[in-house]
Amino acid sequence: MFGARPGATLAAAGPGVVGVVGAGQLARMLLESASALGLRAVVMAEDAGEAAALVAGDLFFGSPLVEPDLRELASRCDVVTFDHELVDLELLSQLEDEGVTVRPSVATLQLAVDKRVMRAGLHAAGVPVPRFATLPGHTEADARPAIEAFAAEHGWPLVLKAGRGGYDGHGVWPVEDEREAAAVVHSAEERGIHLLVEEYVPIEAELAVLVARRPGGEVVSWPAVETAQVGGVCREVLVPGRLGPDLLEAAGALARRVADVVGSVGVLAVELFSCRGRLLVNEVAARPHNTGHWTIEGAVTSQFENHLRAVLDLPLGDTTPGAPNVASVNVFGDERGEDPATRLAEAFAVDGAHVHLYGKAPRPGRKLGHVTVCGDDPADVRSRAWRAARALGTPVPAGIDLPVGVSR
Amino acid sequence: MFGARPGATLAAAGPGVVGVVGAGQLARMLLESASALGLRAVVMAEDAGEAAALVAGDLFFGSPLVEPDLRELASRCDVVTFDHELVDLELLSQLEDEGVTVRPSVATLQLAVDKRVMRAGLHAAGVPVPRFATLPGHTEADARPAIEAFAAEHGWPLVLKAGRGGYDGHGVWPVEDEREAAAVVHSAEERGIHLLVEEYVPIEAELAVLVARRPGGEVVSWPAVETAQVGGVCREVLVPGRLGPDLLEAAGALARRVADVVGSVGVLAVELFSCRGRLLVNEVAARPHNTGHWTIEGAVTSQFENHLRAVLDLPLGDTTPGAPNVASVNVFGDERGEDPATRLAEAFAVDGAHVHLYGKAPRPGRKLGHVTVCGDDPADVRSRAWRAARALGTPVPAGIDLPVGVSR
Repeated sequence: MFGARPGATLAAAGPGVVGVVGAGQLARMLLESASALGLRAVVMAEDAGEAAALVAGDLFFGSPLVEPDLRELASRCDVVTFDHELVDLELLSQLEDEGVTVRPSVATLQLAVDKRVMRAGLHAAGVPVPRFATLPGHTEADARPAIEAFAAEHGWPLVLKAGRGGYDGHGVWPVEDEREAAAVVHSAEERGIHLLVEEYVPIEAELAVLVARRPGGEVVSWPAVETAQVGGVCREVLVPGRLGPDLLEAAGALARRVADVVGSVGVLAVELFSCRGRLLVNEVAARPHNTGHWTIEGAVTSQFENHLRAVLDLPLGDTTPGAPNVASVNVFGDERGEDPATRLAEAFAVDGAHVHLYGKAPRPGRKLGHVTVCGDDPADVRSRAWRAARALGTPVPAGIDLPVGVSR
Repeated sequence: MFGARPGATLAAAGPGVVGVVGAGQLARMLLESASALGLRAVVMAEDAGEAAALVAGDLFFGSPLVEPDLRELASRCDVVTFDHELVDLELLSQLEDEGVTVRPSVATLQLAVDKRVMRAGLHAAGVPVPRFATLPGHTEADARPAIEAFAAEHGWPLVLKAGRGGYDGHGVWPVEDEREAAAVVHSAEERGIHLLVEEYVPIEAELAVLVARRPGGEVVSWPAVETAQVGGVCREVLVPGRLGPDLLEAAGALARRVADVVGSVGVLAVELFSCRGRLLVNEVAARPHNTGHWTIEGAVTSQFENHLRAVLDLPLGDTTPGAPNVASVNVFGDERGEDPATRLAEAFAVDGAHVHLYGKAPRPGRKLGHVTVCGDDPADVRSRAWRAARALGTPVPAGIDLPVGVSR
């Protein structure tokens, strides 16, 4: 169905083999879903200790930055998809030109992996984004005048962001004044990082919408959720959370528009700010996303299943939530680096806690799993999810108001 | 936590590694659950084409009937559990005596794998079972007088059953008279099969109850379900089905009693007949079971997760159904042996159909997957589940009344 390629091991029939670039927890959860559906998947891992490498039945080691490795993956599957964005777009583009099916496409990835391209592309399509400017170069001489001009128009503070490579708060630098901006620019020049400058948005709430889209344009989206981010790292997801239905519906409509603009195939995660009643699109990730883990137990079809269905161009599944309220809390390594798996008994003692651990080596602050709880009462599901996450050792960062009854 | 054994590769910490004897679909679904929970599992498969062998990350080939193979499995895990019952109980008993943790225990397996032992054990404990007699030997000379004596007391027809090795209707022979009985006895003697004889039960309905039990005796059970069996093969499972709550509750209580009687650890499936308002325990399987696949999407905790939790002696999860009605229909190979994976698009087009395919090579009549649908209306969920199963090629046997709107 995807067209034969030289060297490709095509499935004789059936929906095709999915090849996954990267072997993190997203790949691991994709594999769980592929196994349930009877789909074949092959994973390209970089290290045997990675979350998906620990469980994959069909696995090889390679880097998406190394041409022969990527070609090997392409030869073993019918469609290439992604666990992460640390890819070589030129190389992928070359393969795509040769007929390899890459989903999401390189054009979509271009937008998703570089904030400068994404901001410009969405802005041009009329999607509301924070006011921004891409800097003309990455030398201090290029950057500083542009930042000063931007500040003259929009005032301080501002936010400088790395175009590529940022995640979980990395690559985002709020700056109060010219002196702080200069320090970031200096460091960015040394590391060869291309920056963009943005207005500082006084965020009232953060939201995320997951959208699944097929090649032909069929789109489904899960309900918008409220996320709690601390230092740029998602700590909890509440469905529907504390925001009103109008705002959530507007976020959903905006995210579906973004999916069309970027022409995504598979799951697209759209993260938004709510600010003075206005929604701004902040981040876009063209893959399953941490803010969508709640869909595994909380929706009729999970983001992982719909990602597989979408990249294989199969009809998408129902995204309706299965309960009025869902809370999902991320599990992070505690300060002693203890393995949360040693504390499963305590987490399992929390009624209805769906525990997910990724099998990764524990390190303080490392994202090691998540817990989802579904139920009727928003305070109750949040409380139970936090109790289980706390039982697994998750530290509580400043900025999170713990539910009543959960100890810090 | 399980006590060290010579040669054992014990996990330094954590809940322990689960070793699975057999690599069928039950093992495959156990692996999906283990991956989600961050648990380590190793599978001993006999063939690379088996359902779990296709997806397992930690796998080796061996037979549970071969001592070194079984010892290798024991050396690679902390607790040995089972995908099937085709095991050598003496060999397992020897390992258990040496300190290998086998869950369920050999004592439980004794009851579960041999209908003669099971009937006698349950009857002795006061659990209602069909009237039965174990035959004194497997020669015709032994068997025939015993069958005639049983018939003299209970009348014809009767049912002859193989003590061991029966599944999916294999090993069960209803006989109308002495002549038919003689033919079965003759054939059984030739094949070395030990028989038992039972009254013919005019079955009004068939039920199943899944029970999960921890080593210390903690027990949870999922609601009793109605099953439709054709020729001894389960075709569909309805939750709660068309039987009244009193009967379902009585079945649940009976099954929990059976779990205590047999001292099971892990999931125990209890299949029952309803006959003139009376419940009789028909079959017991000391492992996850086809009649419990609905729990993956239909209950807060699936049978696979609770099996893992139970054999690792961790607190058991909530067995409450997530919807008022759940229907699960098995997918069988069509008469042409076409792979249902080639028809996924049609099945995915059925709203809310949770499709599970096991990756097994398609053969006419082979069990290749199942479909589960959850919802508010019993007729609607049954109809959608059958539509998806039909889309995947499942033939409709005589004896199944198809829902309205589903084509035969």
